[in-house]
Amino acid sequence: MTTPLRLGVAGLGTVGAGVARLVETRREALARRAGRPVEIVAVSARTRHRDRGVDLSAYDWEDDPVALARRDDVDVFLELMGGEDGPAKAGVEAAIEAGTHVVTANKAMLAHHGAAMAEAAEAAGVALKFEAAVAGGIPIVKALGEGLAANGIVRVMGVMNGTCNYILSEMEARGADFPEMLEEAQRLGYAEADPVFDVGGIDAAHKLALLAALAYGTRVDFAGVAIEGIEAVTATDIAQARDLGFRIRLLGVAKMTEAGLEQRMTPCLVPAASAIGLLSGVTNAVVVEGDFVGQTVFEGPGAGAGPTASAVMADVLDIARSGATPVFGRPASALAEAPRAADGAPAAFYLRLALRDEPGVLAKVAAALGEEGVSIRQMRQYDHRGETAPAIFVTHPAPRAAVDGALGRLGAMPELLAPPVAFRVEAV
Amino acid sequence: MTTPLRLGVAGLGTVGAGVARLVETRREALARRAGRPVEIVAVSARTRHRDRGVDLSAYDWEDDPVALARRDDVDVFLELMGGEDGPAKAGVEAAIEAGTHVVTANKAMLAHHGAAMAEAAEAAGVALKFEAAVAGGIPIVKALGEGLAANGIVRVMGVMNGTCNYILSEMEARGADFPEMLEEAQRLGYAEADPVFDVGGIDAAHKLALLAALAYGTRVDFAGVAIEGIEAVTATDIAQARDLGFRIRLLGVAKMTEAGLEQRMTPCLVPAASAIGLLSGVTNAVVVEGDFVGQTVFEGPGAGAGPTASAVMADVLDIARSGATPVFGRPASALAEAPRAADGAPAAFYLRLALRDEPGVLAKVAAALGEEGVSIRQMRQYDHRGETAPAIFVTHPAPRAAVDGALGRLGAMPELLAPPVAFRVEAV
Repeated sequence: MTTPLRLGVAGLGTVGAGVARLVETRREALARRAGRPVEIVAVSARTRHRDRGVDLSAYDWEDDPVALARRDDVDVFLELMGGEDGPAKAGVEAAIEAGTHVVTANKAMLAHHGAAMAEAAEAAGVALKFEAAVAGGIPIVKALGEGLAANGIVRVMGVMNGTCNYILSEMEARGADFPEMLEEAQRLGYAEADPVFDVGGIDAAHKLALLAALAYGTRVDFAGVAIEGIEAVTATDIAQARDLGFRIRLLGVAKMTEAGLEQRMTPCLVPAASAIGLLSGVTNAVVVEGDFVGQTVFEGPGAGAGPTASAVMADVLDIARSGATPVFGRPASALAEAPRAADGAPAAFYLRLALRDEPGVLAKVAAALGEEGVSIRQMRQYDHRGETAPAIFVTHPAPRAAVDGALGRLGAMPELLAPPVAFRVEAV
Repeated sequence: MTTPLRLGVAGLGTVGAGVARLVETRREALARRAGRPVEIVAVSARTRHRDRGVDLSAYDWEDDPVALARRDDVDVFLELMGGEDGPAKAGVEAAIEAGTHVVTANKAMLAHHGAAMAEAAEAAGVALKFEAAVAGGIPIVKALGEGLAANGIVRVMGVMNGTCNYILSEMEARGADFPEMLEEAQRLGYAEADPVFDVGGIDAAHKLALLAALAYGTRVDFAGVAIEGIEAVTATDIAQARDLGFRIRLLGVAKMTEAGLEQRMTPCLVPAASAIGLLSGVTNAVVVEGDFVGQTVFEGPGAGAGPTASAVMADVLDIARSGATPVFGRPASALAEAPRAADGAPAAFYLRLALRDEPGVLAKVAAALGEEGVSIRQMRQYDHRGETAPAIFVTHPAPRAAVDGALGRLGAMPELLAPPVAFRVEAV
């Protein structure tokens, strides 16, 4: 029980430095939890000499993460570099090949290579754990893979991108529009210079693809996620939605339907009084609905050095206690290739149309919707400006295809002064 | 991998029947998760022939749960009978002695005997798991014991008694008083004929004692929980608290302070906009604050056949995957005996005083508070009726002992027409 568990840390950015700090400051508590000392033996990063706010001088240095992964004295390789391919993937593959356990925070890599990596890890008898890759400090990978593992999962939903949460919250609080708040988020360092990963929904979709695999025992299928970013959301949408009793969130939903696995990451209207509607600031939330458990909700910080280090080290402690367990909760070889059902069940949709302010236009809109079988539950015009009469519609539940058909017809109407915008209303 | 994991189920009430239904309906999925078939081989209950809505005829019957626990063909003994001592305790002890893993939903038993049972289980090399004992379907035992295990826990809070949640919610929604809503809860079957376990806070305190042990690595110390029930809460308190921006909840709090372990289960005022303030109906919630992770919130159904069966079977799957792990997350022999610090840090308190409506009374109240060092932040009188002038005070943060001193002085004043009532304001 006194042989230490030896860690090799690849990547010393925010997350890696946070992990080093946790290992140093909570040394005794970790040893009690792990049943043996937990030690960092070697580290690797792009630049060696840089102040990271934590003393790394006691650790061996490796220039190459692959060399770090292959060291004989590393029991667990922590991949904290990020990036879908490149050194991260090479390092993880080298570790698995060397029979070394892996803990990673890398959602992009797993969203693309998770199924193959899980197979390789299980064949090699090593762990491949990724709590930190989804929703930061919230132990949701563990909850889905273990805590709720006896359930048939009815639906998983998540609000999992802090940048989008921040932008949408600020748009709501200040009545500001998207470009302005994006600029502010970039200035404050919440959003990357190239924001498309965040506001385009890709980062959150990576996480959703991992949750779906855990929930349904399917091979990670990132390409099967229907993705829309929040760029089209306006202050008007937020205000109108609020007035109708909703909030707008970049919401991920995974559901197994008769047609196959439905995965979407799109701006949705959710009831203002629901757990997800009540969420504020950058907090992440994941809702899991199980056939036995009913609805459970998990909330917490989705990013940052501390929360991510908490998740990484929980995985390390799991390895200390239980060694290798199936990566996605069932043997990787048994993970199913599910057909895609991107459209989902019929749902209500929120439509925003910039109509020309002239007689007969509403009748034409109503006819276009009706011809596609989309019926209107609520309609309101607001805020006439010059020749534009913006109008909001909330439909009765309709198939996505029908709504797309209607959007096509509407988009072709000369009376529409801008392309129509549609957001799904998700019952939560 | 094809040897089945064989279960013996003791207790066939709501929970036991729910577990049997889960094992039958999700047979294949459980086998995939467990890596081998999961089967019930034998059951035990007080009465054999009773319709439980599930077919038990394929299982062996044992009249005596101890005999069930000792069977050679039982790998995991599921103790679903309840009760602090008696057959539940005898059955669990017999199973441990026989080298058989144990899963239990029994908070009362573990609150009283958890530390000793953990030692016995670890000495025998068997698992003793209890996810279902705390907050029903919410995987909070796993979250504290594993998912957040790398953190130093700053505070754990929980709203964990559905009966109290129901009564307080209905009092709020309908402006009704406690006795009326208790009677209704009993009529609807939400509260036992003898409600003291629920509304007296004892059931919830059992759960809190288990969370505290998991959070702080201490021996379960139920006797160290300061308990107050919700009997003293009135419709007026709820309305006044609401008006001040708070909700009243039966809230459990565990915190490690310099003086020792603080554990309380008492009615508290919490900010209306906090996760716990926003909670509605019978939903349970647990808030965990860690030094690295920050604040995380877990919500879900705290009782019922489905949620409890979900938790019980998650434990069974853990045993299938990982066998015996430390019961409270560290070796039982290393669990500390923490001194008790029941009073907690200074806090604001809400006071309700039934004052005689005559000149000079308020001055006397203010003097009594001041002499104990309790200063007033907010005061309001309301709803004069005859000679009574009820008054609400919210204090500045003050030590509990000072507030108790003030309550003693106030209680002795002839101008008080009823004993004073005090509830803590918990910052969430």
